[in-house]
Order: sequence, then C-alpha cells, then structure tokens
Amino acid sequence: MNVLVTGAGGFVAPHVANAFRDAGDTVRTTDARPVEADSNSITADFTDAEQADRLMDGIDVVCHLGGVGDVYLALDHPEEAALANVVGTANLLNAAKSSGVSKFIYTSTWEVYGEPEYQPLDEKHRCEPDHPYGITKLAGERIALSYDALKGQPVVALRLGTAYGTGMRPNSVFSIFMDKARRGESLTVQGSGAQARQFTHVSDIAQAFLLAAESDVRGEVMNIVAQESISIRQLAELVAEEIPTKIEQVPARTGDVASATVNSEKAGKLIGWQAKVDFRTGLKALIHHHLDSSQ
Amino acid sequence: MNVLVTGAGGFVAPHVANAFRDAGDTVRTTDARPVEADSNSITADFTDAEQADRLMDGIDVVCHLGGVGDVYLALDHPEEAALANVVGTANLLNAAKSSGVSKFIYTSTWEVYGEPEYQPLDEKHRCEPDHPYGITKLAGERIALSYDALKGQPVVALRLGTAYGTGMRPNSVFSIFMDKARRGESLTVQGSGAQARQFTHVSDIAQAFLLAAESDVRGEVMNIVAQESISIRQLAELVAEEIPTKIEQVPARTGDVASATVNSEKAGKLIGWQAKVDFRTGLKALIHHHLDSSQ
Repeated sequence: MNVLVTGAGGFVAPHVANAFRDAGDTVRTTDARPVEADSNSITADFTDAEQADRLMDGIDVVCHLGGVGDVYLALDHPEEAALANVVGTANLLNAAKSSGVSKFIYTSTWEVYGEPEYQPLDEKHRCEPDHPYGITKLAGERIALSYDALKGQPVVALRLGTAYGTGMRPNSVFSIFMDKARRGESLTVQGSGAQARQFTHVSDIAQAFLLAAESDVRGEVMNIVAQESISIRQLAELVAEEIPTKIEQVPARTGDVASATVNSEKAGKLIGWQAKVDFRTGLKALIHHHLDSSQ
Repeated sequence: MNVLVTGAGGFVAPHVANAFRDAGDTVRTTDARPVEADSNSITADFTDAEQADRLMDGIDVVCHLGGVGDVYLALDHPEEAALANVVGTANLLNAAKSSGVSKFIYTSTWEVYGEPEYQPLDEKHRCEPDHPYGITKLAGERIALSYDALKGQPVVALRLGTAYGTGMRPNSVFSIFMDKARRGESLTVQGSGAQARQFTHVSDIAQAFLLAAESDVRGEVMNIVAQESISIRQLAELVAEEIPTKIEQVPARTGDVASATVNSEKAGKLIGWQAKVDFRTGLKALIHHHLDSSQ
C-alpha cells in the first residue's frame, strides 16, 4: 500500500509511519513545516486545497494526523484550530475522493465527548465538547464521516486516548516531569492531581492505524484508548520513583478537560485492536530513553 | 445600540437589520459581496481576520447571520462551509471580544440536531448532524458558546427554524413553487412530500434577535421555531389554492434533512419570544407580495 501520513512533525505521526513501513508499505509523510527528523517529509499546507491535492497522487490510504493538536493553542486561537482541523480535513477529503483513496483514517480524540453522562464512555455517548480543541476535532470527524455516508469515500475515525512514548512534545506533562526531575526540581501537580487519563502507548496507537487500514471497516468511529487510568499525581509519583524529586501542588488551569474513563471494546470487535503496553512498563522505558538521550 | 448585522445579502439579515432600525437602533450591515438592495452594506470577508476586525468599531451587539447557508453548497463544498461558518465565526468572535461587544448573537439552525431520539426536539436533545451544513453550523455555535464560557464574551445562539417571508432566495421551495405556479407549471414534490417543516415567519425570527439583544441572557442556546408543522405537500397545495396549478411527485434528493418537530418553549421563558404569524396568513401575504412584485 501507498500510505500518506499527515502531521509528520508531530509526536504520533512518525510512529504511525514507521508501523506501516515495518509492515512493508510505502509511506509518504507531510507536514506544514519542515521536519528535522524526517528529511523526506513533504512540506505542504493542507489548509490550501491545491497543496492538499498534490499530496494525494498514487495514495491508497491516508492517515490524517495533522492539524492543531495543542489544546492551549486551540484555546488561544480557535480560528487556527478551525482552519487546520475542519477546513484542512475537508481539503484532504476532497483530494482523497478525487484520487480514489481506498481508506481515509481521521484522527479524533476522546476529548470530543465533553461532560460524561455515563462512564466508561463508549462511541454511542453523546459528544458535547465545550473546548475549541474538541469542538474542531469533532467537526473534522463529522465532516470526514459525511464523506463516507454522502460521497462514498471510505472513512474511519479513531478517537485516541492521550498518547505517550518517545518523541513526545517538550510541553507534554511527561516531558515536563522528566525534565524537572532530572534537574532536581519539584514536579508540579495542577489542582488535586486526581484528574486521570488513560495514557495510551504510541506503539499501540500506531497499531490501530495499521489495523484500520487493513480492515474492511468503514463509516465507523472507534475509541483507541488503553484501559488503565492513571492520575496526574500517580504519574508524578511514578516519575519520582525513577528520578527521585519532590512533588508540589499548584492551582488548576482554566479549560483543562476533566477526567473520564473510556471504553475501547468496539475497536476490539471491529478491527481486533487492544492496548498491549502496560503503563508502568511503557513509562519506565520512556524515562530511561529520556535519561539516555539527554546525557 | 450600535448593531452589526452580517450576511446582509442573505434573506433573513435585512429583516433583522430593519427590526433593530425600527426599535431606534443604529445598524451597520455587511456581506462578503456588494448588496444591491443595501448600498450602505460594507463589503468585507470575515474569513479574513483583519476584515472582521475592521467591522467591529463602536459596535454593541453583533447579529451574526453570515456564512454558508445553502445546504447544497455546503454538501458540494464542505471546506467552504467550514471556512465561513467555523473560521469566520471565530474571527468575528475575536474581533467582538477585543472591541468590547456586549452581546454576540450567533445564528444556528434546528438542523444541528440530526436524527431525533425524541420529539419535539428541545435544546437538551443531543446534536449529531451528519450533513456538512449542520456540522459546520454546530461547530460555529459551540465555538461561539466557548467564547462565553472560557473567554467572557457574552454569547447567545438562536437555532432558527426554516424561515419564510419576502426576500426569500429564488432557490427556496417557496420561491420555486410560486414561480412555477405563476407560469402554470406543475409543482414538484420530492419523495412522498410528507417531510414537514415548522416554517417560521422572518418577522418572528427578527423579533427573536431583538429580544435576545435586549435581554441579559447569555451562554444559552434557544430554538426559534414556530409551532405549526407544514408538509411540503401541504405547502404545494396551499400555493396551488392561491395560484391554481397541478402537483407532481419526483424522487427524493440525497442529503435532504428528514422531518422533526421542534419545541421553542425555552425562548419563551428566557426572552419572551413566541411566533406570532400564523402560517396560512404569512404564506398568503408572501404569495400576494410575490404576484404584485412580479407583474
């Protein structure tokens, strides 16, 4: 298969690209900015329709991970998030449809659900995001699925859990904790630290794209979230176990998304996905990789 | 009050502008294209942030009716609908927030609900649009409400029913029926013709904007839909009563939104709105205006 992976400068996309390469597929990567670690990445801005078109030649499968993925950027600039996550997605879908792409995989997020009515959240739960990040990701998801239902373009949407693993952004809580611990500074936990996430290892997420590309499933949305819930305080404690340092509490930020548990059984049934990396194992490997690479 | 009305070249906006003028307010109108019937309308494209900014000087209330309102255009070009309805809305909200606008009224639609779980639809019903028009209108609505909740910009969203009245677009079912009947051609009813709409007179809709602007209500979404349901077949029959002609059935189009009944009690409670124009009265007046103006 010829696979296009957007958002190559982000954290998750390179892992997705590598998973397809490891499976013997040919991968084209792209990002709006040059990607230091990937000199073959095509610099193109898919918020421009013509640039989106030019990416699609000969492509069988699109893994669309590009867009505004930083929740604080989306909060400060909802117009940028809307342009990248909604308009840009529609441009890529138009290009995919014209060039006969057999599967378009849209990267959504568990943050589309908003306030839980019941937990764990499954795909039938209502989606009522109140944050510009979730709002624009959900709109992009729905636009993508409308191309499947109304225009015949096969689409699958994956609602990812919070990913972790090597290559995380320096502003992720993992990177911040590891950097602070290494410098002997206290780890700061916002609010009570009880807010939990089902951190999902990036290799498990990459596998979900591969399984979605290889299956006949279309017109479906699936949660791709590991089962285990870890609170921010637990994360701080686990980091401090590996790199001893203190933990300190500070006030919560506006616009942070509250905890919720998410169920990924549908992805198990439809594409045979399940998370394989246990959190403590994944975190230890990440910390040791971080310590090795920053020496 | 100084009121900005966007979408001045559309059908509903001029009625909203006139309602504020009649109440003694000063109104600035704008559209992306010059407006033949309104030489004072400022030609500006709010999908460009700077142009959005320039509209906002001295404005107290924004009635944001601009954007892609044609469902077939939105279906053919979701990227244009997303740019106008989501990015453009965010640009106007940024401009409104910076210049201290006291109320931003976003024009949403009953079509944001999608498949009804119960009827009549109230504002607590889940929103799951599957058509690019409803998807982008809902994203714009949620972005607008996020400015109220997260950024302190007072916002109200009005989910309008299908509006009718003088000045309707030539591609509205009303205009098509009246034109055909006048030429002695058959009125074509798509599908069974049983799909119904709570057609809402444009003067009632204009009043809702005035009431929303004058009230202290913010952070709320309200249905603005007349109670009476009229099927497309009934509409054809009522037109044919006034301008005698035949009625003919043709197959349904893809992407049409199914019938649903909508409840507007919340707008009654919060801002004292209710529809005052009875459908038959409103339709007869429209038909006679149409016949007079096309002689």
